[in-house]
Amino acid sequence: MANSKIICGFHAVSAALNHQAENVLNIYCQDKENDPRFKALLAQATDSGIDVQMTTKQRLDKLTESASHQGVAAQVRNKKELDEKAIYQWLDDQTGSPKPLILLLEGIQDPHNLGACLRSAEALGVDWVVLPKNNSAPLNATVSKVSCGADQNLSIVMVSNFARFIKGIQERGVWVIGTALSATQSLASMDLKRSTALIMGTEETGLKQLTEQSCDELAIIPLSGETASLNVSVATGICLYECMRQRA
Amino acid sequence: MANSKIICGFHAVSAALNHQAENVLNIYCQDKENDPRFKALLAQATDSGIDVQMTTKQRLDKLTESASHQGVAAQVRNKKELDEKAIYQWLDDQTGSPKPLILLLEGIQDPHNLGACLRSAEALGVDWVVLPKNNSAPLNATVSKVSCGADQNLSIVMVSNFARFIKGIQERGVWVIGTALSATQSLASMDLKRSTALIMGTEETGLKQLTEQSCDELAIIPLSGETASLNVSVATGICLYECMRQRA
Repeated sequence: MANSKIICGFHAVSAALNHQAENVLNIYCQDKENDPRFKALLAQATDSGIDVQMTTKQRLDKLTESASHQGVAAQVRNKKELDEKAIYQWLDDQTGSPKPLILLLEGIQDPHNLGACLRSAEALGVDWVVLPKNNSAPLNATVSKVSCGADQNLSIVMVSNFARFIKGIQERGVWVIGTALSATQSLASMDLKRSTALIMGTEETGLKQLTEQSCDELAIIPLSGETASLNVSVATGICLYECMRQRA
Repeated sequence: MANSKIICGFHAVSAALNHQAENVLNIYCQDKENDPRFKALLAQATDSGIDVQMTTKQRLDKLTESASHQGVAAQVRNKKELDEKAIYQWLDDQTGSPKPLILLLEGIQDPHNLGACLRSAEALGVDWVVLPKNNSAPLNATVSKVSCGADQNLSIVMVSNFARFIKGIQERGVWVIGTALSATQSLASMDLKRSTALIMGTEETGLKQLTEQSCDELAIIPLSGETASLNVSVATGICLYECMRQRA
């Protein structure tokens, strides 16, 4: 179905049942009746009036495009697609604290990295995640599984023009910090208590030049070894942790 | 060869040539003559008198047990295996600053997670990484590749009895901090400038009970979302970053 998607894995399906049961169309499950986690999950589905289909590993492999599904998948209606106007509107309405925190992931290619970034984003208090409409790993079953279902609790927006979007949030008082290995200022030295957007680049080449030029500041995580850089999902986690630490 | 291992990927092979060329026995390479990165790498190998064998993708897949090898692998002589006595000796010799920083990974199962932890450990200034002799992902080609070759620059020790090892370093003045979701004190509230060992548990079940009881303190990374925990390699990166930040 074009307006639905497959998610999989215990945490992701469980998150869908907890947070948007009304959007869960079907659950597909291998026979795991002796597993208490699954028993509870299937009981919850049945209570919510959701159809549970017992199926084979082969069918689950096919449904999930061979994601690591742990024997369970769900067909979930896509949430209403949000665009950048939703963020602008939300920013215009903000008055209190904590100040907005927006995470822009400029073009992560690996679904495991994207999933891990979303898991950290949800756990560490990000208000909005912004992805490029093109040139990013798609939000598929693997991403959902790796994120432990965090993709379903996050407000995720796809934008087609990053530079225009950055200008749009800057005009609404958001301070935009890009991460770059060429930066000279450490992230810890910056004030992250104000309205902040953090931008992480791709695994291989970092931020695009135009994006880098659009930032208010460029930050680096100081490293001390021979290894030139961190994994992008680790770097994202560290940046969000630093925000959280300063805001605590 | 029992006393050698296969590593793969551009960064890992490059790190081996830079840091322990004397241990590199062979390089296996797909035909990538038009790629300048590979040209430089092969020239460096030839300069060091190392045999370069052009081979097929199939042979590389087999050699590396289907790790993501990027068309290059190397056979590397195993470094002399270090044991816990080497750490005790090193600790006894320490006088200056920064104070020792030891990372214990109690039983990470996924080679991608282990590789990402090693990459962060090397980049963020860890002196020693300690793994359990059993019940950890093995240090194979995938781990080396994901770590970007950091595994070769790190001092890694396998110990068979974690509780005994913890006692051994405590007796030498190391403050041992375990990470646990049940902890009440945040890592940021702790003094990480002294001699410190950080212990990270497994992906699914965290620290073993006996290990938890052996720690001087238990720390948590405060989370604010619905997601109950972070990926172990992200959590490891954040803990090491916090050490680095306090020590800067």
